Amino acid sequence: MRTVHVGLVGCGTVGSGVIRILQQHREDIARHQGVDLEISLVSSRTLSKITALGVPKDRIVADWHDIVSNPDIDIVVELIGGTGVAADVILEALKAGKNVVTANKAVMASRGEEVFAAAEEHNCEIGFEGAVGGGIPIIGPLKHSLTGNEIDTVLGIVNGTTNYMLSRMNESKLTYAEALAEAQAKGFAEADPTADVDGLDAAAKIAILASIAFNSRVTIDQVPTQGIRSIAPMDFQYASRLGYQIKLLAIAHKGADGIDVRVHPAMLSKDHPLADVNGVNNAIFVHGDSVGNVMFYGEGAGSGPAASAVMGDIIEVGRHVLYDIPPIVGCTCTDQVPIKDPGEISSRYYMRFYVADEPGVLTQIAQSFGDCDVSIASVMQAPSSSDCAELIFMTHHALEANIKKALDKLFDLDVFYEFGSLIRIEEEE
Amino acid sequence: MRTVHVGLVGCGTVGSGVIRILQQHREDIARHQGVDLEISLVSSRTLSKITALGVPKDRIVADWHDIVSNPDIDIVVELIGGTGVAADVILEALKAGKNVVTANKAVMASRGEEVFAAAEEHNCEIGFEGAVGGGIPIIGPLKHSLTGNEIDTVLGIVNGTTNYMLSRMNESKLTYAEALAEAQAKGFAEADPTADVDGLDAAAKIAILASIAFNSRVTIDQVPTQGIRSIAPMDFQYASRLGYQIKLLAIAHKGADGIDVRVHPAMLSKDHPLADVNGVNNAIFVHGDSVGNVMFYGEGAGSGPAASAVMGDIIEVGRHVLYDIPPIVGCTCTDQVPIKDPGEISSRYYMRFYVADEPGVLTQIAQSFGDCDVSIASVMQAPSSSDCAELIFMTHHALEANIKKALDKLFDLDVFYEFGSLIRIEEEE
Repeated sequence: MRTVHVGLVGCGTVGSGVIRILQQHREDIARHQGVDLEISLVSSRTLSKITALGVPKDRIVADWHDIVSNPDIDIVVELIGGTGVAADVILEALKAGKNVVTANKAVMASRGEEVFAAAEEHNCEIGFEGAVGGGIPIIGPLKHSLTGNEIDTVLGIVNGTTNYMLSRMNESKLTYAEALAEAQAKGFAEADPTADVDGLDAAAKIAILASIAFNSRVTIDQVPTQGIRSIAPMDFQYASRLGYQIKLLAIAHKGADGIDVRVHPAMLSKDHPLADVNGVNNAIFVHGDSVGNVMFYGEGAGSGPAASAVMGDIIEVGRHVLYDIPPIVGCTCTDQVPIKDPGEISSRYYMRFYVADEPGVLTQIAQSFGDCDVSIASVMQAPSSSDCAELIFMTHHALEANIKKALDKLFDLDVFYEFGSLIRIEEEE
Repeated sequence: MRTVHVGLVGCGTVGSGVIRILQQHREDIARHQGVDLEISLVSSRTLSKITALGVPKDRIVADWHDIVSNPDIDIVVELIGGTGVAADVILEALKAGKNVVTANKAVMASRGEEVFAAAEEHNCEIGFEGAVGGGIPIIGPLKHSLTGNEIDTVLGIVNGTTNYMLSRMNESKLTYAEALAEAQAKGFAEADPTADVDGLDAAAKIAILASIAFNSRVTIDQVPTQGIRSIAPMDFQYASRLGYQIKLLAIAHKGADGIDVRVHPAMLSKDHPLADVNGVNNAIFVHGDSVGNVMFYGEGAGSGPAASAVMGDIIEVGRHVLYDIPPIVGCTCTDQVPIKDPGEISSRYYMRFYVADEPGVLTQIAQSFGDCDVSIASVMQAPSSSDCAELIFMTHHALEANIKKALDKLFDLDVFYEFGSLIRIEEEE
């Protein structure tokens, strides 16, 4: 059996995980899967880290071009992350005729079409299971086992950082700031948490999943995104009383009128399989016309899980290299389904805000909603301080555009003090 | 694009689901996946059923040999079930150089080695995603995405009938007989429920999963099996008080000393992801050294889910037929790991039984356990009737062989009236 040569570009958390797997299991993998894999070249900016992993010095290069241009390399593994150099590595490698494996959600969610075109032109494979859901197999199942289905729903808890924070806010009544500080202390959140807490990471992931599930390209800039910064412990109490759990959901629905894709905090029935997914775990829920509901659950981040996903792709591509098999499944975005205008999406809404505690306020607010075709299902009032009342509104189904109009009207009222939170109710259709 | 010709042998619940998928989605599948599939021949004993599905008469044959021997057929789909004719169909088809897709757990769990040998000898593929977990992708992920892991645990709720019954016994305090009658009325259990309630169906499925996960052949006759007939509503109450849920678990662990594989009712911590899997749903929990914990959840039975799994395999094999790609992943049972003697397996046990309500009884029972090296963790006594006491014992870790010895001693005591139930505690290691 000839050895398949892998070049690793980037050697941080995931890259070192990949190196460790091959150090421990190279012979097992060769015996079980029939592929002998060798990490023949590694490039990274931090030489000491790679040598500490036991990689011989003659396999380390400073410049990634030396990997991409090396004729012996069969598979280039891009694990730098981000959309700058990483995109160059992926595209240059494909143009040089190398198969590519990556965990790069940002590149795949923004330049997927370009990447697939390059792969097809140069007859190469592109594996990216690691881009979504850490170690959870989800791209493989969508591209293989579930292909007999017309999929109409993908719902995901795909960001471990925010799921950890929301879980802690729910179970221990932490504030947003406390939950963030705890997540940072444990290494689950970065110093600048923007990509996680504002939902951008989740947006990239749902763009990728929607593209595969619906066979139609969705890019990250097409995903309206609302983060979790405004969620407060009291929202969990109200949610619980109403039978809901609050999760940052990445949502994609396909209907006759197009694709509805978005990321926002949502109230989910406590009976929903996603409602019990806590901590840094991820889960992706899929509904297909034949299969019904299926869910994929696991650790969404970390060196081991992400390296597991990347390694699965390397082994798969390695098998094809060995047997001289051309790429089997490339881009599956064969349709062009329109993306629905977010304003046209109908949901039920939960809203919390603060108003003057005086007669006639409720009438004014009800009027504002009514004027914009937003019908109120229930109101709860809790005294907040001497002259301020906390109001919780649940609406009937309303168009997002109308909710926005109603909120603008509300903000203009003299009796309106402060906005609390706005959370959509996600119901299974 | 040339059409890939499929021959369907057996056209019951699953087969009609496959026909329906292709009636609805043949063009979608061709466009999205690049494979045009046609069901060119169908064999079944009930002609009227096939014509009712809209299959033209000239595509229906009475004898499956006419499908297997037809030179135009690329893929034979065996959906008869059972180990008799079904095994002949699978083996004859492979010998005739046909690729085979099946949902037959019984054949794969008892004659898998023979099937893989025939597939390899005749350079054909064998797909069997439908054999385990209905529509849940699990064999694909184990054979592809998770191959970078050393897997040490597979825990499954893989029988929808018994999970439905246990869920109903738990939530509505039904007796075993009531739960069975309800499951039969709803079409979830057969008139003869033996294969489900005695755990035989689950045993076949865990044999298949263990073989793939551990790269070592496990057959159904190597799986010790205990069913759910002795479980009573009160067991759920005790379990709940102790923080457990009762599930019929299909269990496979691999350790340094071999494979521990079995099917039995088990108490599972309420925090375990499998504890919330209710009704006819199935879920399979896998632990790998890199990926950590992952779980696959969905509908475990029914026409749609099983047809989804079968269709995924047909599309996959169809792609290979079209591109003239030889079988990529065949048998992966490359190791010969010993199966542990069930007597040597250590667990904690929950036991319920009835004894004479008189002084000294507890001493006699404690003595019986102690003599056999079974250490008691706790005893609860509930007065059952005037002269009878209900006893609940929880043991510390004990070898199964010792538990059996202790029970034999117990049965011989004059004060012993009747055995209730025995449930192992399944703990994550």
